[in-house]
Amino acid sequence: MSGKVFLIGAGPGNPELMTLRALRMLQDADVVVYDRLVSDEILAMHADGARLIPVGKAPKCHTVPQDRINEILLEEARAGHTVARLKGGDPMIFGRGSEEAAYLTAHGIAVEYAPGITAAQGASCSTGVPLTHRGLATSVQYVTGHRQADKVLDLDWKRLADPDTTLVVYMGVANIGQIAIGLMTENLPGSTPVLAVGKATTPDERRLVSRLDHLAADVREADLKAPTLFIIGKVVSLYAERPVDQILEQAHG
Amino acid sequence: MSGKVFLIGAGPGNPELMTLRALRMLQDADVVVYDRLVSDEILAMHADGARLIPVGKAPKCHTVPQDRINEILLEEARAGHTVARLKGGDPMIFGRGSEEAAYLTAHGIAVEYAPGITAAQGASCSTGVPLTHRGLATSVQYVTGHRQADKVLDLDWKRLADPDTTLVVYMGVANIGQIAIGLMTENLPGSTPVLAVGKATTPDERRLVSRLDHLAADVREADLKAPTLFIIGKVVSLYAERPVDQILEQAHG
Repeated sequence: MSGKVFLIGAGPGNPELMTLRALRMLQDADVVVYDRLVSDEILAMHADGARLIPVGKAPKCHTVPQDRINEILLEEARAGHTVARLKGGDPMIFGRGSEEAAYLTAHGIAVEYAPGITAAQGASCSTGVPLTHRGLATSVQYVTGHRQADKVLDLDWKRLADPDTTLVVYMGVANIGQIAIGLMTENLPGSTPVLAVGKATTPDERRLVSRLDHLAADVREADLKAPTLFIIGKVVSLYAERPVDQILEQAHG
Repeated sequence: MSGKVFLIGAGPGNPELMTLRALRMLQDADVVVYDRLVSDEILAMHADGARLIPVGKAPKCHTVPQDRINEILLEEARAGHTVARLKGGDPMIFGRGSEEAAYLTAHGIAVEYAPGITAAQGASCSTGVPLTHRGLATSVQYVTGHRQADKVLDLDWKRLADPDTTLVVYMGVANIGQIAIGLMTENLPGSTPVLAVGKATTPDERRLVSRLDHLAADVREADLKAPTLFIIGKVVSLYAERPVDQILEQAHG
């Protein structure tokens, strides 16, 4: 008899930000297939005797190709195992969880889901910067700043350059200069505040407060690395109740 | 000595979708100030002897004004209590959590946060419809379809009518006809599939699959009520792996 696959969002990193369902599913699984962004503390919550299969993706270094990940999940489920497919953040927002689910479902394997707190939500709660706020942002949009090898970053800057929306950019470190220029070209003010958060909610969390027109230089100077996300918009002005300029001075040393 | 306030996202309704932190904070509190959208099962997890204060907001019927909610939180914290401020979804996305936090912080009260799974994430995982999917949606945007009394619904239809984005509309039931027309006027195709989910992740969850040009009629016919959210975009075509037209037939009886 076939097993099944739990598609689990592990959240942003801090184990306390897992949902009760994610924890229950992880502890019910006898095989755990996990990404690089899942923290050691979370992985350690697996059931005694469970078999761990890393398929982690690093930027520009896909250790296991997506097709092979799909096959591993299918093989393990067909062998009768209860498989936890553990991903950072939420499996249904970026991260290709729905591609894996579609593949498995097409092959007759049952898939159950546990949503996860996104890195943006984690960063919001750890910094106190909301994603919407009356008078500052009436909506929030998540985009990815990653581009495929040898392709240009093809984002619709005109739609994204909205002063009344909080823009959250995932996987944007490598292209953040191009992103800032694209937004400013479509008239998002260079003074728009930006909060960059690396490894949000973990002991290694790093924060940088900047503004759109200084962002690329500040990110380079601070040597921020992936995974870092960017929260762009007026909501960042609420950071720690202090004016942005004052924080900028600190960030600039 | 002053107490403190835990600003807690209770998630979409199913108690299993709370985070471990949300549960811990709720159980540590001796006063619980909660919204109408928080489910009874979640509320029941409070500590023995905790005092419960409902401040629930129903549409067009704010039982306790926001200013008074702020005062209650401040008074309880100043009286030395550990206060759980329990909200549906995520406190930093809509829901005015950051306004309460700003008020409390300005008055010297410590605020700690627990993020929550949004209704959109809950609906995504309960229906299998992702919020992004390669080739269907490269980004996701959350907006609110609620308008203040006596004001027109003032959304930037041109920015929102993006065929490559998943648009999630909160608080949109009352104005869904106007929203659909606004999007179609800016050339989002009338055939764009839409998933409406009421009370996502709870035993009372209701689903309606429709398309933009039939949406208002279908919502009226199904008599959907708040809280219902709308997921608008090509990702909805993945619903249950069936072609949208087939589901539409079912929805239309």
